[in-house]
Amino acid sequence: MKVVHTIKELKTILGEHRKQGNKIAFVPTMGFLHEGHMSLIDHAKAAAPIVVMSIFVNPTQFGPGEDFERYPRNLERDCQLAADRGVAVLFVPDVAEMYPDKPKTNISVSNITSRLCGASRPGHFDGVATVVSKLFHIVQPDLACFGLKDAQQVAVIQQMVQDLNFPVEIIPCPIIREQDGLALSSRNVYLNTEERKQAVVLSQALAQIDLKFLSENTPKEVTRKVTELIESKPLANIDYVELLSFPSLEPINQFEDVTAVIVAVAVRFGNTRLIDNKIIKK
Amino acid sequence: MKVVHTIKELKTILGEHRKQGNKIAFVPTMGFLHEGHMSLIDHAKAAAPIVVMSIFVNPTQFGPGEDFERYPRNLERDCQLAADRGVAVLFVPDVAEMYPDKPKTNISVSNITSRLCGASRPGHFDGVATVVSKLFHIVQPDLACFGLKDAQQVAVIQQMVQDLNFPVEIIPCPIIREQDGLALSSRNVYLNTEERKQAVVLSQALAQIDLKFLSENTPKEVTRKVTELIESKPLANIDYVELLSFPSLEPINQFEDVTAVIVAVAVRFGNTRLIDNKIIKK
Repeated sequence: MKVVHTIKELKTILGEHRKQGNKIAFVPTMGFLHEGHMSLIDHAKAAAPIVVMSIFVNPTQFGPGEDFERYPRNLERDCQLAADRGVAVLFVPDVAEMYPDKPKTNISVSNITSRLCGASRPGHFDGVATVVSKLFHIVQPDLACFGLKDAQQVAVIQQMVQDLNFPVEIIPCPIIREQDGLALSSRNVYLNTEERKQAVVLSQALAQIDLKFLSENTPKEVTRKVTELIESKPLANIDYVELLSFPSLEPINQFEDVTAVIVAVAVRFGNTRLIDNKIIKK
Repeated sequence: MKVVHTIKELKTILGEHRKQGNKIAFVPTMGFLHEGHMSLIDHAKAAAPIVVMSIFVNPTQFGPGEDFERYPRNLERDCQLAADRGVAVLFVPDVAEMYPDKPKTNISVSNITSRLCGASRPGHFDGVATVVSKLFHIVQPDLACFGLKDAQQVAVIQQMVQDLNFPVEIIPCPIIREQDGLALSSRNVYLNTEERKQAVVLSQALAQIDLKFLSENTPKEVTRKVTELIESKPLANIDYVELLSFPSLEPINQFEDVTAVIVAVAVRFGNTRLIDNKIIKK
């Protein structure tokens, strides 16, 4: 595996692969890799012979008071994990490489970003859309893999790709969970023992939801039942519990109106904000 | 020359050229071609063996009450001119091909768009940046030629390309003028005989400006003198006369502070809004 830190070096290497007609699959990450990221590599490898992973903790998608500074980092371990799993090129730019000057260009995706994390984290998805656009232009992949734990992010990027005609296929990949159900996240390391124990309530609250449950409960009843179960844990501090259409992320009155719904939750345990979701297709 | 109307067909043709290692130069236009566009083709041909031109009157860059509906169109004549000048592929999508659904994604470039046409035409440069981004993703050119009559557009696109790492080289091309000095524009056909005669004042007012003139006049005196000359024509209705740094497009107090300035004017003759400019490098 080649580890490169500059755009110029990356372009030289990928230019060679492209000349040889090799398809390129891209896995953008913020590092501190876990099995969720590893499964993205597996999906990428299944789709293309060359897998490029990026590790970049993007400052523009963090709001004031969020965890940009303390976001967990361990490049040495990440390199080992990525190499062992079959990444061909690991792109690790620093902030000055990605933002040499104060940028004046912003990409925003409306509607899809007005609820869930878009409401809780103003500017977050502008930062995500803009940096993903930069990375797509730098890597020029044929396809890119994103995890569905960040389901709203997947919806935003798919909308951006469609609206702006990006020549990139987006592959949404399923959530990977711990044995007890907790969705894998680099932020799980922030949790203390008691928080970690109680955090399992997110996946438990979502596990009860299936087609039958949706047919027997109104959207309001669904969110009320999920909320009640999460609130039964004393350390849980709910940011949102919402049931929306997917991927348009709009409120719905009846399940009959849409082909897929998402129940999405964001909950704080101490200073740690966790998200999880379940998408149900009819 | 191949004339194609769909993105799919265009991609098939350009994919073949790319496989053969041919560089692609792109000339995006709104059609109703004149010698200004022809010179862009010449610049494109000098830089790459394959020239792709697009003709698309983009609705999202016109404001309410602007001339989208009556913007001059003549595809048959355009095809002939483009073919004769050496365009290999002419891409002519309709609005439904470019915007199959109501788009939710917007690209905006701040600062550079706050003055000149950005102030007179709110939303115009968002429409330009977004559609150029779409066209770049569809055509995937190595380089793209833009005319400096729309100097602010060139500055906006160069900023976007830099900020978003587009793998496209932007080639700004000089203004082409009528024998009497009027800058070529598809909108010149709107002018009646008397308006056409008086419109020459724009280029005359700019012609007096050179390094010596700038050293002998303050920025305020420059804009006052240009304004006075234009106002001497009874049919001229000034939208703006501004002297700014180029390409950052910020007001300046002294010429000593910057390496290049632009004097830019927008003037209405009847219902027709004309723009012109002169860039002076130190």
